[in-house]
Amino acid sequence: MDKTATSKALEAPVPVCNGAALRKATRRLSALYDDILAPSGLRLSQHSVLVHIKRAGTPTMTDLARDLVLDRSALSHNLKPLERDGFVTLFKDKIDKRSTRVSLTASGQRKLAESKALWAIAQKRFEGAFGAAKASAMRELLFEVCSDEFNEKFLSLPDR
Amino acid sequence: MDKTATSKALEAPVPVCNGAALRKATRRLSALYDDILAPSGLRLSQHSVLVHIKRAGTPTMTDLARDLVLDRSALSHNLKPLERDGFVTLFKDKIDKRSTRVSLTASGQRKLAESKALWAIAQKRFEGAFGAAKASAMRELLFEVCSDEFNEKFLSLPDR
Repeated sequence: MDKTATSKALEAPVPVCNGAALRKATRRLSALYDDILAPSGLRLSQHSVLVHIKRAGTPTMTDLARDLVLDRSALSHNLKPLERDGFVTLFKDKIDKRSTRVSLTASGQRKLAESKALWAIAQKRFEGAFGAAKASAMRELLFEVCSDEFNEKFLSLPDR
Repeated sequence: MDKTATSKALEAPVPVCNGAALRKATRRLSALYDDILAPSGLRLSQHSVLVHIKRAGTPTMTDLARDLVLDRSALSHNLKPLERDGFVTLFKDKIDKRSTRVSLTASGQRKLAESKALWAIAQKRFEGAFGAAKASAMRELLFEVCSDEFNEKFLSLPDR
């Protein structure tokens, strides 16, 4: 069965554009995770924002945006519903007044615990259906796309 | 130098969430391609919509949405600026009046030729910086995430 699936995949039209391949896979996987996260009221992207804030503590908006690979306005847009629902709070940095920091509220911590339990179900299913080694190989490749080394190399290559 | 880059990548915190890994890589790569496509006035996502329409001829909105892994409302949202700028045209199917079809205009064909030339530069740079074999391996993995086989397997797995 695995063999059939592989040869089928090789025959099928794999996208040639790295961008199209990435975008489609992102949407497909987000839909699968979103369905499982639905009882928490969070989408995968919102869950991910809470995870990144929790990990960083009280990050500045600039650092959080960089960490999530978002521009500042997209980050603000993503934070709005989370702030409205009382899961995150934004405040001015005590020393650098131009800098805004964000942190989880107690309610945000509880919500994150809830979404994390659901996320773990989705992630376990992904690993089971895709194969843990393949999933890990995919994450390594994706991580490299995000690396500064790769980005610098991309930007420095001549066009011919 | 390659060895250093590899050991560095292995030490660095590769995201554990497949969704976060995918979303970040998609944004990073889109930004790189977008910059190169900028002279055409199209973003990579818009270029990709034109490519998919061209390939399908005069697809129904339903088929185009499926092909792009978008829901109908996201597709409509993406088509709006392309329709406004005269690159695509929407029309009712002659037989099934409930079905809307979309096609490239002559101006859309020209715009696509323009963006394709820029896309080819971006893609060539990606392959050069990332490595053609690795890029191909990544696309195969992403393609599998999008496959119906994987999606069915994901949905059918028990949670414990």
